[in-house]
Amino acid sequence: MTHFADRLADAVRRCGNPLCVGLDPRWESLPKEIRDRHEGESLAEVAAAFEEFGRRLIDLVAGRVPILKPQAAFFEACGPDGFAAMKRLLDHARSRGLLTLLDAKRGDIASTASAYADAAFAGTSVRNRVHPVWQADALTVNPYLGRDAVEPFIAAARRVGAGVFVLVRTSNPGAGLFQDLVVKSDDRPLYQHVGQAVAGWARENLGACGLGDVGAVVGATYPAEMAVLRQQMPEVVFLVPGFGAQGGTAEDTRPAFRADGLGAIVNSSRGITFPYRPADADWEARIESALGDTIKVLGAVNS
Amino acid sequence: MTHFADRLADAVRRCGNPLCVGLDPRWESLPKEIRDRHEGESLAEVAAAFEEFGRRLIDLVAGRVPILKPQAAFFEACGPDGFAAMKRLLDHARSRGLLTLLDAKRGDIASTASAYADAAFAGTSVRNRVHPVWQADALTVNPYLGRDAVEPFIAAARRVGAGVFVLVRTSNPGAGLFQDLVVKSDDRPLYQHVGQAVAGWARENLGACGLGDVGAVVGATYPAEMAVLRQQMPEVVFLVPGFGAQGGTAEDTRPAFRADGLGAIVNSSRGITFPYRPADADWEARIESALGDTIKVLGAVNS
Repeated sequence: MTHFADRLADAVRRCGNPLCVGLDPRWESLPKEIRDRHEGESLAEVAAAFEEFGRRLIDLVAGRVPILKPQAAFFEACGPDGFAAMKRLLDHARSRGLLTLLDAKRGDIASTASAYADAAFAGTSVRNRVHPVWQADALTVNPYLGRDAVEPFIAAARRVGAGVFVLVRTSNPGAGLFQDLVVKSDDRPLYQHVGQAVAGWARENLGACGLGDVGAVVGATYPAEMAVLRQQMPEVVFLVPGFGAQGGTAEDTRPAFRADGLGAIVNSSRGITFPYRPADADWEARIESALGDTIKVLGAVNS
Repeated sequence: MTHFADRLADAVRRCGNPLCVGLDPRWESLPKEIRDRHEGESLAEVAAAFEEFGRRLIDLVAGRVPILKPQAAFFEACGPDGFAAMKRLLDHARSRGLLTLLDAKRGDIASTASAYADAAFAGTSVRNRVHPVWQADALTVNPYLGRDAVEPFIAAARRVGAGVFVLVRTSNPGAGLFQDLVVKSDDRPLYQHVGQAVAGWARENLGACGLGDVGAVVGATYPAEMAVLRQQMPEVVFLVPGFGAQGGTAEDTRPAFRADGLGAIVNSSRGITFPYRPADADWEARIESALGDTIKVLGAVNS
């Protein structure tokens, strides 16, 4: 069982880039070709369209990027059929050699957190048999509920060499409402306190690459905050959203990386998956082109 | 379209108690009778057992309590089949006149939050048709991502007269790690800042009963904090977990209520759903007995 950070580091080195492709399927953005085939008269048809699109995307990016990040919300929007499609896409991504990061931002306490964590990683145990559910390599987790809400996820991830990415400083315009509140004891904002807890959890279990299996979500839209966090959390892998469509540039992601080019993955969703109009017949070529461009621009920062 | 707080107030008055029954199904706690029928050799069988148990529980509590709270984590642990069972149980609870509060602690930004919110409330729109998913009356939401992560949930809830319960002060032992951090600007803990934002959102849209459609999760295990929050948030409905199995007493929930007995619902999960050993053949009688006892003890505080 290889440590999550080492598996991720190997994949980043093998692909030569730190790009995480976000799979956020939306009906209205799908290629018309796929929509026409599935019609969209029921959520089962919408889920089937998401699945076809996801499979073809996975086949385009496999071997070129280290990790795929399906966003659970868009599959949940299709109900149980959506989750069935998500499960098959996670299986397909794994079979094509991609690492998978399930972006579900789960968080709850004690045995409830364990139920989510079992679903995400090893599977659910019933009558001494383990039944796989999502089998993701990593999961995003929300820290608001505190220590006993995060630690069951970490424990479950460690049992199978998976990873957890804790929300620290998110990329959205309204993120500061609570994350930026300055704490009296040390004049530091809340997100740095969360970062400090994450750094402690990460240090408990470092891989051979010197990075831990507990990562941090740190938005590209706040490069100054990111630089401070990088210093405070030298052993934490950053998942950097907000690059591309949300306004962060490749240069803005530079502080996330260690000198050796490891230590962060940079997410792009719409920029890779929807760089075309639905009616464009050559949508796969446009994805390949966007992928090549993004890898080049990130590679220049990352090397 | 009746306002969520008015629908809840009507249900509480009609039932004469503020009890929220938490449905947290776990295979090992289910009645042996149900486990034997479904065997549990696959997650589909486990989900079927959860569904049978849930239906029979709903039939026992319908008309006696105002609201049912299914915990999404335990259904997710059964994968897509679990979510299908959850959907049918939400439908069944609604058909039996229970309000439903989906405890999923969702949280994400912008259009991603909207996808979760559409699933929770009105349904997902595709090609100008709306497809229902969970159709819950309310949803629990995590505030860490900030303003633009909570507001899409509120907007979606308002379109259909539903409600949102934002985590403020949770009932778990490790909740204080971040929630209790004291903010420099006003010497108040983080959870009071979250509470203040919730109070503002609630005030935007009050029902005839004087309460808003944005509620707060405030654990029974911290009665002193609860009393302060009640004063600061007079128009906010509290969802009070931590009563019963987690250690909070009925007396501990008293500060959550307004003088007229409205303003809060008190959750009990294990105390109502698992007051027996799996082998007990009379498990339904034991649920009825636990239900009667809990209603009596809460009624004494609440009247």
